[in-house]
Amino acid sequence: MIALKDIHSPKDPNFESRVHGSFGRQTLMRTISASISRLAPGEVDISMPMQAGLSQQDGFVHAGIITAIVDSACGYAALSLTAAGKEVLTVEYKVNFLSPAAGEVFVARGRVTRAGKTITVCSGDVVAESGGQQKLIASMLATMMTINPIP
Amino acid sequence: MIALKDIHSPKDPNFESRVHGSFGRQTLMRTISASISRLAPGEVDISMPMQAGLSQQDGFVHAGIITAIVDSACGYAALSLTAAGKEVLTVEYKVNFLSPAAGEVFVARGRVTRAGKTITVCSGDVVAESGGQQKLIASMLATMMTINPIP
Amino acid sequence: MIALKDIHSPKDPNFESRVHGSFGRQTLMRTISASISRLAPGEVDISMPMQAGLSQQDGFVHAGIITAIVDSACGYAALSLTAAGKEVLTVEYKVNFLSPAAGEVFVARGRVTRAGKTITVCSGDVVAESGGQQKLIASMLATMMTINPIP
Amino acid sequence: MIALKDIHSPKDPNFESRVHGSFGRQTLMRTISASISRLAPGEVDISMPMQAGLSQQDGFVHAGIITAIVDSACGYAALSLTAAGKEVLTVEYKVNFLSPAAGEVFVARGRVTRAGKTITVCSGDVVAESGGQQKLIASMLATMMTINPIP
Repeated sequence: MIALKDIHSPKDPNFESRVHGSFGRQTLMRTISASISRLAPGEVDISMPMQAGLSQQDGFVHAGIITAIVDSACGYAALSLTAAGKEVLTVEYKVNFLSPAAGEVFVARGRVTRAGKTITVCSGDVVAESGGQQKLIASMLATMMTINPIP
Repeated sequence: MIALKDIHSPKDPNFESRVHGSFGRQTLMRTISASISRLAPGEVDISMPMQAGLSQQDGFVHAGIITAIVDSACGYAALSLTAAGKEVLTVEYKVNFLSPAAGEVFVARGRVTRAGKTITVCSGDVVAESGGQQKLIASMLATMMTINPIP
Repeated sequence: MIALKDIHSPKDPNFESRVHGSFGRQTLMRTISASISRLAPGEVDISMPMQAGLSQQDGFVHAGIITAIVDSACGYAALSLTAAGKEVLTVEYKVNFLSPAAGEVFVARGRVTRAGKTITVCSGDVVAESGGQQKLIASMLATMMTINPIP
Repeated sequence: MIALKDIHSPKDPNFESRVHGSFGRQTLMRTISASISRLAPGEVDISMPMQAGLSQQDGFVHAGIITAIVDSACGYAALSLTAAGKEVLTVEYKVNFLSPAAGEVFVARGRVTRAGKTITVCSGDVVAESGGQQKLIASMLATMMTINPIP
């Protein structure tokens, strides 16, 4: 389906600083040591190392934390295509968990599928990296909304 | 639809200690100061106070953390109905965000809609409490799978 | 969660005729012999009899048809609360299938969870009726968008 | 993410006749004139021409029908990888609608993302073709379950 995807060109030449600025205000990303590892128009990767305090009952990373990084990746993929002065909110998402979240580093990849005037649809994946190997552990399909800033 | 719901009776008389034991192993729940505030067969509430280090860019609680508490609430609602020795994994979920996650305390409510042999479907809600007022901020529809313990 | 739900009051006193008019233009509803069996502000039921030409491989009603009636029920529940002259589009939905779609009549119930200015979130259920018995066979969580009419 | 996807090899050398046999029993597919236009291990396309009796209120194809063809495409993509004698049921799906379903022909593409012992996760897309042009109109993320035949 690659050929059918929109080619994404940013409306705001300063999209990178806008994304980094907003990401810097997400205190959760600091708490879980997540960082933006790739940023292009309509495409954002967020990486996070394995950490002991973020697990579910079997020692794997909790689904909610995996969701947090891929939600932020999708949200910033959407934000990267908006006009200056706009913000993006998550309307909803769905996530499938494909394998236990075990690994050294987790990379969440958010991509814009279709950027509309109000609604932007994104798809995301999360890969666990371990000993040079990669494994797909989660897939997201998300709906984002472009809004004016919350006063 | 209340009248159509299954009446939930636990297969394991020790379901309460099994849920509390598993919850105690979720290090994320400790990290975010979440606790089980209600536990009945097929119904679990998890409460979490507002905390500065869990926010998105506007100071509201990050969607991933709201998701984490309602995922655990749904998962433990499912676990409460399983036979002794079984575990529950999240296959997938979908969450709609209805209002900004602002408040003093957040209560996630997970309920079993239908408990099958392999697949259990749950619905969840998250309420923000502030100054004695409650506001519905998120709704989840989730698919859980009953498995034998991971060795 | 009943107590937390919005009390729904219609903005358009003619909401009933507007819903029936739009439903009458859905040729699919005629093709599958579906009809509105209940209409209240924020709440719509759509009923459909079992039919031989709508099945999947085992003779049960195809998931897409069950989805069609509960999507329309949710969409018209949303439309019933909009101002005169507005339309409603389905942004996305998620459906869980709980039991095989076997029965004499299927009743899809759509309810508005939260009606916003642009986005309305609905939940839906489908019940199969057979020999005076009811069985819950599907649950939907859907996102609708209020728009101006498509020219 | 292409490189991370499983390479799909069928367990049953007769997977093609098994898929066609099951598809032939879906009376809905005949009712809406849908047919399998591509079949490979883990990948199924289903095509359907525009038809007057399948519309929503604005004359576009109803979301439920678009969902039906992409659900069947995903389900048969999953079935193509199962062992002989197994069946596949839809546990749940989520669909985003990206553009109005207008066109001459609709092609639903189902692909297996991960085939597990019990659970198979699929992604699907629906493209509208019109005057030699293609447009992406819907995306699905679905959970399928492999079961023994219903007696």
